[in-house]
Amino acid sequence: MSLVTRRGFVAGSVAAAVSPSIARAVSLLRSEGQDGARGEGSFETKVRLNKGWELFQGSLAGVWEALHSDELAVFAPVVMPHCFNAYDGCDPDVSYYRGQGWYRTRVKVANPFAAGRTLLHFQGAGQVTTVWVGETQVGYHEGGYDEFVLDITDAVAGLKQDAKESAKGVPLVVCCDNSRRMDTIPSDFSDFSLYGGLYRHLDLVYVPQFQLESVSIDVSETDTDSPLVTVRAGVGSRLPLGGRVPEPKLEVHDPSGKILVIDLKSRIEPLSFITVWSFRLPKAVRWSPSSPQLYSCHLSLDSFGKGTQTTTERFGIRHYEFVEHGPFKLNGERLLIRGTHRHEDHAGFAAATPDDVLREEMKLIKAMGANFIRLAHYQQSRLVLELCDELGLMVWEEVPWCRGGVGGEHWKQMVREKLTNTIEQHRNHPSVILWGLGNEDDWPTEYPSVDHEAIRAFMTELRELAHKLDPTRLTSFRRSDFARDIPDVYSPSIWAGWYSGLYREYEVSLTKQAALQPRMLHVEWGADSHTGRHSETPDKAMAEVQAGHGTDERGLDYKPTGGPPRVSRDGDWSETYACNLFDWHLKVQESLPWLTGAVQWVFKDFTTPLRVENPVPRVNQKGVVGRDLEKKEAYYVFQSYWAEEAMVHIYGHSWPVRWGEADEAKMVKVYSNCAEVELFHGSKSLGVRKRDAGDFPAAGLRWMVPFSAGVNELRAVGHLQGKMVTDEVKLRYETRAWGAPARFVMVETARVGSRVTVEATVVDAAGVVCLDSRTPVRFSVAGKGRLIDNLGTVGGSRVVQVANGRARISVEVKGKATVGVAADGVEAGLVGV
Amino acid sequence: MSLVTRRGFVAGSVAAAVSPSIARAVSLLRSEGQDGARGEGSFETKVRLNKGWELFQGSLAGVWEALHSDELAVFAPVVMPHCFNAYDGCDPDVSYYRGQGWYRTRVKVANPFAAGRTLLHFQGAGQVTTVWVGETQVGYHEGGYDEFVLDITDAVAGLKQDAKESAKGVPLVVCCDNSRRMDTIPSDFSDFSLYGGLYRHLDLVYVPQFQLESVSIDVSETDTDSPLVTVRAGVGSRLPLGGRVPEPKLEVHDPSGKILVIDLKSRIEPLSFITVWSFRLPKAVRWSPSSPQLYSCHLSLDSFGKGTQTTTERFGIRHYEFVEHGPFKLNGERLLIRGTHRHEDHAGFAAATPDDVLREEMKLIKAMGANFIRLAHYQQSRLVLELCDELGLMVWEEVPWCRGGVGGEHWKQMVREKLTNTIEQHRNHPSVILWGLGNEDDWPTEYPSVDHEAIRAFMTELRELAHKLDPTRLTSFRRSDFARDIPDVYSPSIWAGWYSGLYREYEVSLTKQAALQPRMLHVEWGADSHTGRHSETPDKAMAEVQAGHGTDERGLDYKPTGGPPRVSRDGDWSETYACNLFDWHLKVQESLPWLTGAVQWVFKDFTTPLRVENPVPRVNQKGVVGRDLEKKEAYYVFQSYWAEEAMVHIYGHSWPVRWGEADEAKMVKVYSNCAEVELFHGSKSLGVRKRDAGDFPAAGLRWMVPFSAGVNELRAVGHLQGKMVTDEVKLRYETRAWGAPARFVMVETARVGSRVTVEATVVDAAGVVCLDSRTPVRFSVAGKGRLIDNLGTVGGSRVVQVANGRARISVEVKGKATVGVAADGVEAGLVGV
Repeated sequence: MSLVTRRGFVAGSVAAAVSPSIARAVSLLRSEGQDGARGEGSFETKVRLNKGWELFQGSLAGVWEALHSDELAVFAPVVMPHCFNAYDGCDPDVSYYRGQGWYRTRVKVANPFAAGRTLLHFQGAGQVTTVWVGETQVGYHEGGYDEFVLDITDAVAGLKQDAKESAKGVPLVVCCDNSRRMDTIPSDFSDFSLYGGLYRHLDLVYVPQFQLESVSIDVSETDTDSPLVTVRAGVGSRLPLGGRVPEPKLEVHDPSGKILVIDLKSRIEPLSFITVWSFRLPKAVRWSPSSPQLYSCHLSLDSFGKGTQTTTERFGIRHYEFVEHGPFKLNGERLLIRGTHRHEDHAGFAAATPDDVLREEMKLIKAMGANFIRLAHYQQSRLVLELCDELGLMVWEEVPWCRGGVGGEHWKQMVREKLTNTIEQHRNHPSVILWGLGNEDDWPTEYPSVDHEAIRAFMTELRELAHKLDPTRLTSFRRSDFARDIPDVYSPSIWAGWYSGLYREYEVSLTKQAALQPRMLHVEWGADSHTGRHSETPDKAMAEVQAGHGTDERGLDYKPTGGPPRVSRDGDWSETYACNLFDWHLKVQESLPWLTGAVQWVFKDFTTPLRVENPVPRVNQKGVVGRDLEKKEAYYVFQSYWAEEAMVHIYGHSWPVRWGEADEAKMVKVYSNCAEVELFHGSKSLGVRKRDAGDFPAAGLRWMVPFSAGVNELRAVGHLQGKMVTDEVKLRYETRAWGAPARFVMVETARVGSRVTVEATVVDAAGVVCLDSRTPVRFSVAGKGRLIDNLGTVGGSRVVQVANGRARISVEVKGKATVGVAADGVEAGLVGV
Repeated sequence: MSLVTRRGFVAGSVAAAVSPSIARAVSLLRSEGQDGARGEGSFETKVRLNKGWELFQGSLAGVWEALHSDELAVFAPVVMPHCFNAYDGCDPDVSYYRGQGWYRTRVKVANPFAAGRTLLHFQGAGQVTTVWVGETQVGYHEGGYDEFVLDITDAVAGLKQDAKESAKGVPLVVCCDNSRRMDTIPSDFSDFSLYGGLYRHLDLVYVPQFQLESVSIDVSETDTDSPLVTVRAGVGSRLPLGGRVPEPKLEVHDPSGKILVIDLKSRIEPLSFITVWSFRLPKAVRWSPSSPQLYSCHLSLDSFGKGTQTTTERFGIRHYEFVEHGPFKLNGERLLIRGTHRHEDHAGFAAATPDDVLREEMKLIKAMGANFIRLAHYQQSRLVLELCDELGLMVWEEVPWCRGGVGGEHWKQMVREKLTNTIEQHRNHPSVILWGLGNEDDWPTEYPSVDHEAIRAFMTELRELAHKLDPTRLTSFRRSDFARDIPDVYSPSIWAGWYSGLYREYEVSLTKQAALQPRMLHVEWGADSHTGRHSETPDKAMAEVQAGHGTDERGLDYKPTGGPPRVSRDGDWSETYACNLFDWHLKVQESLPWLTGAVQWVFKDFTTPLRVENPVPRVNQKGVVGRDLEKKEAYYVFQSYWAEEAMVHIYGHSWPVRWGEADEAKMVKVYSNCAEVELFHGSKSLGVRKRDAGDFPAAGLRWMVPFSAGVNELRAVGHLQGKMVTDEVKLRYETRAWGAPARFVMVETARVGSRVTVEATVVDAAGVVCLDSRTPVRFSVAGKGRLIDNLGTVGGSRVVQVANGRARISVEVKGKATVGVAADGVEAGLVGV
């Protein structure tokens, strides 16, 4: 592997193709002075470019129009990173924008290294990116999820600016374009938004004459007492290497941060100038989800006294195996894979999720008890992988060959490049165990034809490429049954109880599918649920569903119309049903000793271009948390099976009103990992139940409670290994029947500064809340107010279905305003705020 | 001129270049059966394709996605013709959409002619159009304003459809794209919207084996008693012509419809198969604005018994001359050119103005007294030219080289093609007297450089091309002073009293400019005005304007900020000021015996991408009617100078409240073409005034009226040639002073069906209307209502400046709703509707 020949820096050229490994290396590097005090003679060698940016969202004819926009286009200030679909991905009225977004700023460039290079390091931008310094194009990059680096040294040097212009800085223009295209990936038919924008970090980087361009760390013989570590560091320069080239220095630290005293002899590969160190780590500490131990390599490169560059790269020692027909083993022991998925998507930010929100999300995933995550359906940001390493989450990372069949040569080359980049940029992360080659390449509306042979051939090529680039890891693929023999690990489609069949059929499907290939991991299972919607009759839709016909998603059955009866179409999308479905699946998964594991779809709600009829329009609501990380009840179902820390949760925290006959007993479920739980109704104990994982639902932690009309209080007390945990809910029990929805009752429920939250409740003519209403409503505002909407959440969408008769919205209020709510066949509601 | 070699039908090919003259010919043709009863054996040979269309506005990767959109893009039904910027051209919040719009429908194709051709005839589509039949691309056309024809015979024949698909018809997909581009015209820097969409008529046309492909009628020696008429008819066929070719037959009708009995011998030009008739018309009746007499040619072509095609083309006999340094003569007599302009733009339709609205508009222009129209800044629809012929409006029609300097070869070729198409497609219209070569190619923010020599060279080339294609007409150009010698007729920039200088300087500017080239026509003069805004002190801003420095528009002086004092920036944009400016200009124009004429900018308000700060955001408000044809007061100022039919109009029909001191006399102006007018205040006559064209303002028809506080009634009575006309207004006179705007009073003023109109009035703390307030307000609605906005009119914009303290909006109401209005520093107003 010659990194130098793949380096490909082409300063100031049209297409600055970039080595996949360079992107990682460059941004890791630190140069002398950065860590020092910023006194005289010190300088920053990495500047995060997040200031002074403006955006014009629309088509421009080129950089000239972007730089002379006064009479043409109004640029508006934006905060970086920025996704120009931050809000419209879930707009209920129009499809999200797909086209050009033009970003521009001014950058002060002052490279402290005389013979050094000035680089732009993009952590990712969607989906096709063109970059100019002044009117000089310095780069073009296809692909919305991988990193890339552009060398702007020459373009900056060649810029003609007078003193006044120069003082403002170098004009930097970035056009991000997410127009629909058939020759790129992911496919436009993907069931998620192909966001556009400069949505990951961008850094200006100065490097000395010689640079560390790549650092790869491979660990082999991981099942022995002395794993073998091979570190390879590539050196680069603006000019072709030759003559005197400095040699990098290496230091290895153990997980506690101590320098390892070991023999670090190196050799330099001829021609490529790659320095290679090989050493063994006797008594190596293992990385695992329960103990994510990380070693680190510290490298430095001295440009003969004219600047020293340093970088740190972490690695881990772990061994894994997908035993044929199961189970999965990590470091020699069986480990049930308990996984979930994530898209890079968050309310109000879309793909430009802030780092602190991302950290919170990853911690929530860990706290749920997951030990695995599939990064769907594309390479995710470096921070995600760093957190997976640190938190102990095994990873399936995927090339975005998501639907779309096999395209032409341009398309193929892009897929190869994206796979290469994913591997080269993320190979040092011990968390990664699977390179996903793609998803659902049997989609019914694929490009001109679904050519099974072409798909098989290309998938084989990708598998071989992945193995060649990284012999230490397996490949995987989800759903293209005609090619299930190709990836090392395969996942069929099993959506028991949602897109077809009943959840009670899950084990049968798993067992049947497991026999069809040597290594199976069941990824993607779950159900949509609308936060705050609860049901006294969650199983109603199941009555119409035909059992015995399999549980895979077929044809266009994801749609809300057409096709045979199925819960996804006919169910109430309540949290109650979803919890039952999750509960059943988890019960089954935990009981099968041969199972490698399963990966629930999806941790967090996210946007999708279609599904406009969903309770929150254009939002895939299969998350166990909302698009803003608000927990649904399902989160606790997972914790009750997976979490190690004691927890207890009475189902229905967002269910303030239950209903039924006056003398009817209602089931109360408690999700808990405690061995014993006691439930109290008011002050009365309803008894202690022992947790029994095989006793569905709620592992036996359920009680029939004779609610009294009016307010009822419930309290659960659990014990696990000497620790006591409690949970309480207060609810009203409604015994009155209600008629057809007649009007709305609107109430201001919160006011924080200028932000007012209003709740609309649909009631019948007599004023009784229509607790089972699911009507879609539309919020609006008149006067000095602005809806806070297009967030893709139950409380942040101007069009949303009511949940148990209720919906809410928040409004930014600057003076007198009226909030309205409207629904077909119901008198509109209006309230002053 | 060989029409056949320029025919260029390329069936089913990517680029179906089309002869400019073909577009006209094809749609004129009629074939046997069309006029007959639709009994057995009869058929339509022309089908207007205005049914079943759907649109997706956004980027698609190609026709495959358009045809398989179920999971990708939601197509919505639209009414044809359709402009996808019908509403957003004047959206106060976002720039208008520029990108792709995908139209699709199904068309039943059944060509009755065995060896005939099936054609699509586009009357125009914006701005770049690609057309598919099924998945076969059948055409690509750049340019938003000319006609083009595509031959789809082969594509239809090659379509593979099963019976079910076939019954639905042939899939027809049209992608209209108005993305910003630098290699096409008009320039993105143009001060009008470059609309997108299938915004003119589209016809499916069947022709027999042989077709009349072009008919041109040239009239020469028009200043003699016996003008010479030359008719040329080109014949075409799908296969190369050769062997037996039928010969067309000609019949000529006089303006009364009678067949002219004249010798119609013809000859056929070798190779080109063009049939040429030359004949003289002794005692020919002249076409003129006051008597628009039209002859017609009736041609027929019999495909040897297998279908006969007929067509009718009109022509007129007129002679015109721009005498050096003036005046202009038509048919040998001086005629003062009294002109205005129009864009193809209308409230709620933008470029897809319905035919009946267009007819109404052209009649209003005629009724105003105009005899001339400059079609700014592009070729307009055939109906416009037909109406100009019929109504008697002389025409300057222009190639859209509007700003942008000179581009590359692709750009140049496009400009040449558009000039050629304009001439070939509209040359038979007697109304056209000038081929405009362009506008404002000295704009300060032009593409990389304003290269005077390049512009001069290209303008010269265009002039030569126009003269070669049509030796009977002159060329013209507006505003590029460094090239004023190139066009036959030139217009400098004179904006006296608006963009610079005072309107009293108009004559000085005209005289000075007229000396600088042999033939001048002053096009573009006027002022913006906000309908319903009137002023007691309209001349206030004039005090700051420096006189004696010229009256041209300079630099970026059209902007509302920067630059020296000028009325456009500092004035109140009242109708009052605009009427005074018009009055003065008209007075001057009518008084100069050497003047060729002048052409006011612009008849109707229209949208522009910038000018978002205007009283109606993004609307150029220089019209004498609103964007919905609502007359402003200025319309009557023009009538008072130009109209022949008696009229009288008291200024201020939309000025219900005047203000001043209790004992102050106020000027009342009456615009009238009557020789004498008497004004009554209540029942009291204020005396008779004689019209004196030199007595500014209102040609002496003005009275100082001592209004009484409260309601006052005015009545004017005029007499012209024995005809009496009257006009009345009722107004309130306000003597109270008012303070700062404090709040809004909101009143429902009209309810028609579900459409409710609300007026918001801004008042001070004591409730007195702030009659001089110009604050921008924003309307909003909550509940079951929808604003009827983005119309670009004073009553149809959610953001609009108040006029004399008032603003209005209409709302579509389906139930309970609240309309709100908000303005900075004023308490919001809310009213239930």
